[in-house]
Amino acid sequence: MNSDLKKGIGQVTIGDSYDGFLLIREATKGLTSNGKPFLTLILSDATGEIEAKLWDSTKEDEATFIAEQIVKVSGEVNQFRGKAQLKILSLRPAQPTDGVHVSDFIEKAPIEKDRLIEKLTEAIFEMQNPTLQRIVRAFIKKYQEALLIYPAAAKNHHDYASGLAHHIVSMLAIAKEMHKLYPELNKDLLYAGIILHDIGKVKELSGVVTTTYTLEGKLLGHIPMMVEEIGMIAKEMQIEGEEVVILQHLVLSHHGKPEWGSPKPPLVREAEILHLIDLFDAKMNMLNRALDKVNPGEFTERLFAMDNRSFYKPLFEE
Amino acid sequence: MNSDLKKGIGQVTIGDSYDGFLLIREATKGLTSNGKPFLTLILSDATGEIEAKLWDSTKEDEATFIAEQIVKVSGEVNQFRGKAQLKILSLRPAQPTDGVHVSDFIEKAPIEKDRLIEKLTEAIFEMQNPTLQRIVRAFIKKYQEALLIYPAAAKNHHDYASGLAHHIVSMLAIAKEMHKLYPELNKDLLYAGIILHDIGKVKELSGVVTTTYTLEGKLLGHIPMMVEEIGMIAKEMQIEGEEVVILQHLVLSHHGKPEWGSPKPPLVREAEILHLIDLFDAKMNMLNRALDKVNPGEFTERLFAMDNRSFYKPLFEE
Amino acid sequence: MNSDLKKGIGQVTIGDSYDGFLLIREATKGLTSNGKPFLTLILSDATGEIEAKLWDSTKEDEATFIAEQIVKVSGEVNQFRGKAQLKILSLRPAQPTDGVHVSDFIEKAPIEKDRLIEKLTEAIFEMQNPTLQRIVRAFIKKYQEALLIYPAAAKNHHDYASGLAHHIVSMLAIAKEMHKLYPELNKDLLYAGIILHDIGKVKELSGVVTTTYTLEGKLLGHIPMMVEEIGMIAKEMQIEGEEVVILQHLVLSHHGKPEWGSPKPPLVREAEILHLIDLFDAKMNMLNRALDKVNPGEFTERLFAMDNRSFYKPLFEE
Amino acid sequence: MNSDLKKGIGQVTIGDSYDGFLLIREATKGLTSNGKPFLTLILSDATGEIEAKLWDSTKEDEATFIAEQIVKVSGEVNQFRGKAQLKILSLRPAQPTDGVHVSDFIEKAPIEKDRLIEKLTEAIFEMQNPTLQRIVRAFIKKYQEALLIYPAAAKNHHDYASGLAHHIVSMLAIAKEMHKLYPELNKDLLYAGIILHDIGKVKELSGVVTTTYTLEGKLLGHIPMMVEEIGMIAKEMQIEGEEVVILQHLVLSHHGKPEWGSPKPPLVREAEILHLIDLFDAKMNMLNRALDKVNPGEFTERLFAMDNRSFYKPLFEE
Amino acid sequence: MNSDLKKGIGQVTIGDSYDGFLLIREATKGLTSNGKPFLTLILSDATGEIEAKLWDSTKEDEATFIAEQIVKVSGEVNQFRGKAQLKILSLRPAQPTDGVHVSDFIEKAPIEKDRLIEKLTEAIFEMQNPTLQRIVRAFIKKYQEALLIYPAAAKNHHDYASGLAHHIVSMLAIAKEMHKLYPELNKDLLYAGIILHDIGKVKELSGVVTTTYTLEGKLLGHIPMMVEEIGMIAKEMQIEGEEVVILQHLVLSHHGKPEWGSPKPPLVREAEILHLIDLFDAKMNMLNRALDKVNPGEFTERLFAMDNRSFYKPLFEE
Amino acid sequence: MNSDLKKGIGQVTIGDSYDGFLLIREATKGLTSNGKPFLTLILSDATGEIEAKLWDSTKEDEATFIAEQIVKVSGEVNQFRGKAQLKILSLRPAQPTDGVHVSDFIEKAPIEKDRLIEKLTEAIFEMQNPTLQRIVRAFIKKYQEALLIYPAAAKNHHDYASGLAHHIVSMLAIAKEMHKLYPELNKDLLYAGIILHDIGKVKELSGVVTTTYTLEGKLLGHIPMMVEEIGMIAKEMQIEGEEVVILQHLVLSHHGKPEWGSPKPPLVREAEILHLIDLFDAKMNMLNRALDKVNPGEFTERLFAMDNRSFYKPLFEE
Repeated sequence: MNSDLKKGIGQVTIGDSYDGFLLIREATKGLTSNGKPFLTLILSDATGEIEAKLWDSTKEDEATFIAEQIVKVSGEVNQFRGKAQLKILSLRPAQPTDGVHVSDFIEKAPIEKDRLIEKLTEAIFEMQNPTLQRIVRAFIKKYQEALLIYPAAAKNHHDYASGLAHHIVSMLAIAKEMHKLYPELNKDLLYAGIILHDIGKVKELSGVVTTTYTLEGKLLGHIPMMVEEIGMIAKEMQIEGEEVVILQHLVLSHHGKPEWGSPKPPLVREAEILHLIDLFDAKMNMLNRALDKVNPGEFTERLFAMDNRSFYKPLFEE
Repeated sequence: MNSDLKKGIGQVTIGDSYDGFLLIREATKGLTSNGKPFLTLILSDATGEIEAKLWDSTKEDEATFIAEQIVKVSGEVNQFRGKAQLKILSLRPAQPTDGVHVSDFIEKAPIEKDRLIEKLTEAIFEMQNPTLQRIVRAFIKKYQEALLIYPAAAKNHHDYASGLAHHIVSMLAIAKEMHKLYPELNKDLLYAGIILHDIGKVKELSGVVTTTYTLEGKLLGHIPMMVEEIGMIAKEMQIEGEEVVILQHLVLSHHGKPEWGSPKPPLVREAEILHLIDLFDAKMNMLNRALDKVNPGEFTERLFAMDNRSFYKPLFEE
Repeated sequence: MNSDLKKGIGQVTIGDSYDGFLLIREATKGLTSNGKPFLTLILSDATGEIEAKLWDSTKEDEATFIAEQIVKVSGEVNQFRGKAQLKILSLRPAQPTDGVHVSDFIEKAPIEKDRLIEKLTEAIFEMQNPTLQRIVRAFIKKYQEALLIYPAAAKNHHDYASGLAHHIVSMLAIAKEMHKLYPELNKDLLYAGIILHDIGKVKELSGVVTTTYTLEGKLLGHIPMMVEEIGMIAKEMQIEGEEVVILQHLVLSHHGKPEWGSPKPPLVREAEILHLIDLFDAKMNMLNRALDKVNPGEFTERLFAMDNRSFYKPLFEE
Repeated sequence: MNSDLKKGIGQVTIGDSYDGFLLIREATKGLTSNGKPFLTLILSDATGEIEAKLWDSTKEDEATFIAEQIVKVSGEVNQFRGKAQLKILSLRPAQPTDGVHVSDFIEKAPIEKDRLIEKLTEAIFEMQNPTLQRIVRAFIKKYQEALLIYPAAAKNHHDYASGLAHHIVSMLAIAKEMHKLYPELNKDLLYAGIILHDIGKVKELSGVVTTTYTLEGKLLGHIPMMVEEIGMIAKEMQIEGEEVVILQHLVLSHHGKPEWGSPKPPLVREAEILHLIDLFDAKMNMLNRALDKVNPGEFTERLFAMDNRSFYKPLFEE
Repeated sequence: MNSDLKKGIGQVTIGDSYDGFLLIREATKGLTSNGKPFLTLILSDATGEIEAKLWDSTKEDEATFIAEQIVKVSGEVNQFRGKAQLKILSLRPAQPTDGVHVSDFIEKAPIEKDRLIEKLTEAIFEMQNPTLQRIVRAFIKKYQEALLIYPAAAKNHHDYASGLAHHIVSMLAIAKEMHKLYPELNKDLLYAGIILHDIGKVKELSGVVTTTYTLEGKLLGHIPMMVEEIGMIAKEMQIEGEEVVILQHLVLSHHGKPEWGSPKPPLVREAEILHLIDLFDAKMNMLNRALDKVNPGEFTERLFAMDNRSFYKPLFEE
Repeated sequence: MNSDLKKGIGQVTIGDSYDGFLLIREATKGLTSNGKPFLTLILSDATGEIEAKLWDSTKEDEATFIAEQIVKVSGEVNQFRGKAQLKILSLRPAQPTDGVHVSDFIEKAPIEKDRLIEKLTEAIFEMQNPTLQRIVRAFIKKYQEALLIYPAAAKNHHDYASGLAHHIVSMLAIAKEMHKLYPELNKDLLYAGIILHDIGKVKELSGVVTTTYTLEGKLLGHIPMMVEEIGMIAKEMQIEGEEVVILQHLVLSHHGKPEWGSPKPPLVREAEILHLIDLFDAKMNMLNRALDKVNPGEFTERLFAMDNRSFYKPLFEE
């Protein structure tokens, strides 16, 4: 949609003017200190988001400019309380003839869906333990579509379309190398754990556009839901044997500690390693995305999920 | 088995002599500082347990005097390192003709099994929400036998035969009164939660004689196992509706905090109240049993599960 | 004051108009970004409170519209930054002829004072230990009036007129039933502990209208103040015996842990149970009031005193 | 009692022989692995203590060699499980004609009682606020005798006869200098707080010989007991004014944090400083006593009350 | 600069008018809700700071009124959201002919630089251990100039010009008295530790005007930097012996606990005492400055570095 | 030394007899309850260790059988208090003619020294940043010999000869693969951090035979010692630039959190990743060694450095 020369909304700087299509993420009504109504809009594309105020908004505006509506907007980027804000000069809802789609405005994994599914399939193909392989196949069959759409989290890491599959595929790549360096690891168990550990997110989260938690997600969480579902699928497929309980344990313990949501800590080697690989990939994802936004010699914004630390990009990172 | 006049092994004091049948709980081989073999036996009846040493033990002794064997023993109660120890004068394994059974040597709930099952049935009968009632009935049908045998925990509270059912029945009695005082409570939901909250113990623990944790118990724990089983039973019975997920939430959250084993804290009124009633009954059970063993003006032994506190029994407790 | 048909200020929704008397809880002067003065008023009745702005306020307005003043106001309920705000159309101070009183605007316990005092008297009458009974009688005699006016806390639970007495009476009802279920409990000690445990609030808090902490309250707190006063009253009445120190211990330990304000944890059975009953009633009060404000299928606002949790009201709560 | 040339029991080393009078601190009966009775005795003088075994003990021995009995003993110092142990060669109870007294065997403050009382009197004399001075005088009058006998703690710091007075006098000396360096400090308030802060130990602890906790000490602790007593004495003396509550606050908050036993943290400048001076003197006392026992280049034993640290004595401490 | 009669900006109250020179600490551009630009200025002198708004600011204003610029301002003190705000009536940058200097607008230690250096020299002169004395002299020679300019911290305690030297000199005074009261202390070691413990702040902080952290300060912190520098200086001066490592230990451990920035806790007596004296002086400094700003009977603002406590100034502080 | 058929002392089971050379790790004198002297010996070879008692030991025995002495021993493996114990039948010190060496009895890394140094050299050769490469080369030159002898820790992980080099080489292998998967990582910085992060252990620990902490190790720890040494070497080599401080930061922060010994948490991407790789390799090492000792279906002993967890080896680990 945007020409090659055009900056995304996450890339504009104070003083830029902007003209293009954006997706409304949130729309909230307010009153100025003089009692006049206005709308606060969060507008986004795949590169980021910006706040904008629509002054003297009418009832009609309130009904038109709502979350998940695409709009054509032109304006100027100002600063308000230290943050960029778009001063709206013109605004209209997108028309069918504009040829724009919600999916154009959402950040995506840097790897194509086809490639992700190919990688996933390769890993399952490598597995030799038939029990683990059958369970994994059943899950992939059931959840493949959602897996390629869902983010891996509502925010923090891999919070973009196909983020869940991207996270799994990256973890599988680490696991493959770790298994070469530490051949004691049971690769099949580790692969199975990686593929299933976060699939419960598909039931915990509402989707990728305006990601919220489902009722089940709030009251049970993705971990117990997956433990339950592994048990059910194994029962349906009449699979028995220690693999089932061990795989449930890997999912159950992958947050590492009770206070982080795992009622049992890892008590099997591959459970511990799954937890570490999960940490590793999630942290790399957060670090790389935050450091991409700053220049050498600068610190990133504070990263909430990394103990609120702000990271430095050395000058010798040319 | 013991005559009315006879003290149980948990009631003897230093200097007493003892003659009767006891159950071996543990038997461990040792060597004296002179290199001679001996057996350390933990001997018990329904009133308590005592340590005994069998000096100069033979290979045959080692094969005979093993855990879960009943023995006829006579001896004297001495003190060793501040604890009572039975000095063995004679010892032989029980014979079929002695007419003694393992169940005679195990502490039991102070209420008969029949009465417990009656109370449980009454509570289920009171329930009006058909969904909750059907799920609860299915569980009771499946687990009734084990429920009346199992303890509620490996140690600390209700750690005796039928302890699990005793704990449930006591909690139901509290819930009934609380519902009268606070009619906002959903009695059916609370009853269902109480009856199911700890049934997973039947899969987590090995039984009542020498209670240990099963593999599933160690790797998953009774809470996620029950969440899974509620899901499975609801599916089998084709039950749908919010009751299922709410009931799973009650079980999941009944330990109150992630660091105590509940990945979600209580987020429904009855979940919070279930947690409090569970605490209330478990603590009353521990307090009453510990205070029963001391005289007014004395402190109890330290209670590990109550932050290692030692409780005082006032002098005016006549 | 309000007609049957009229909504209280805690019940209005966005878009409603409002016309009636309200009590000013807080009045703060501000300046608009154009440098013009205005007043921010927190207006309340027994059902709740709302914020309102009085634009272009004069010096006279600042002197008139102050905390604890009753006003006649008409206006419209708008939304500002996600919260309801009253747009003032007309405003005047109440006149003597309006026949309104501060006490009309304050939330009250759902049980009448007479009934509360009757319940309290019944409980004292049931007590059989003369020492405990005499101490309790002395306190009730001294503090009866304040007890029926004070809230049980500045906020969170039972924070309304007669809240303190309401909390005590509810706890006595629980204790009565618990004593039936667990006859080992010393009812007299438990009753005495319940009646006295929070009476120190009368010295810790300033009153019921705009509840703040007294200097003594800030520097000592209600717990040590009550321990001291029990000692003094016992001395004056020449009461001796273990009851005095045990009762002081019940008050001292009723918050359960040092980090919650009890320098000693409960070390007597009834002290532990007093702590649990206190928790139970305070939590029921907070839960019921928060859930009353939402519909089935919704979550409550976050409850600060319950670990900031937000509770769900199931759909099957018809 | 011991000649100048003789080592105290805290000074002997492995291989020494010992002949002299010692006080029995504890006497416990045991049985050897051959079933023979023996007594484990903890024997002490003012320099320290040692364990000894009396083999083949008789009923008469058990009745004779009990706690707080002085004995004449000769033996050799051996090592057992890494600790010194006295091998008893001869043992008899002390006779009146031996001219030995329990007080000879107890460690004492390094400053004489007369000097301690003199220092205390000087400080009170310096005080200018009549209210604070009157309260302090009343307490000293009431507790002077006990103050000069009691230790400041059952163990850790100043755990010797007159330890309480020694601790107070040392703290007063620090306060005097601090007031010179920081004249903003209210010296009278600080002096009053120092003198009263730990006097409750006189009611919390049983005495100086075999120091245990009283029932009041266990259930209430010295801090609330003193807060109560300051209130009572002020009432008796008809003293009013903020000094009373501020002084109660200093005592209440002197442990610094709720989890250390102060339900309120210091909220007055002198309360904070009292807490720091208390820490300072207690730590100096523990450090000096532990470092006295080791040579330069060595580490002390672990000090439990100092986070279990072991301190190094530098080589350049000549 | 200010006449004797004139209030500093930290002393004005609501309603005062102000006319004088102030230093701009921060200048931030904003937009009103009507989209008009304005500047938010933080203006300060040695007595404190105030916020001011410059409405309808021009590009030229933005270039002129920047941090570290001195301005001549007249205006009125209003209240905005509970805080004082200066309403600007006139504003111009200072001219060379105004004869004002940045140093006039910065708070200073209450003791003159000459006196501070004199006190420091006296302490070094008192030292008798030649190794410690040589190291200290080398540091003072290297850092004397910065030491007399730098604050001891970016905020909280001694956060004013010469604050670092003031803190050191105050601590030396305490150490001198403590050594008299506890002669076991090694005075030379304690003096050396005090003088060096915070000198790393000179490398950690940017300076005294707008104090920020340097890159080294953020990535390493003043403690490891000083440990390194003591090692380097000792190597350059070819000093060997345990003094070097002990002195490094004193610096390393002076924050007391790992979670407060000391990877090793104090393990030498003087290290523990250095930590306590540091606490003592820092707390006295914060307390005295906060209490100076309030009247008897009032509480101070919350002190972040003292666990966010608010301290009470008793009425009897005349 | 041991024939192929012979079990190492870490491999014997109860009932085995043993005949061979072992190294005395510890020798402690004790007294039986009959007062007879004996020696408790900890005997080891490269496979593990066992306790043995030498009864009725003579003064000569005490002088002969001391730590680090090699002995020829024959005996039988019994059980004592649940642990294996060697019953000594004959014992003599090794003779020069026995041809045994201390290094034969110490566990070694599973990779040869030559191979380790080769791997290390390869990694340095791959580095392209000349500053980082020069610093690393200087350290390797200085510490190469010790690096190949020292363990990586006194216990827990890589606690064997060449353990330090083994740990570094394993981490470099992980880093190489991670750099391929996440090319944003600065490989040179990561390699430099890995090679230097633990070299301070060479100064912190006493060596490999009976590993204890040096005085410097106890008072400063390996982390600040290395930060200091990087600074010194950079200064000597006249290296400047951000690489030095960043590399010091990587070493300083590699324990991840202040409470784990890093006064600054990782604030540079490669610092965070170094911390994770360190965790990863240390945990793999502990897990593999513990799981090697158990059979499928069993749990390992508790691993102190892994939160005291005991890990399960699944049955399907054929």
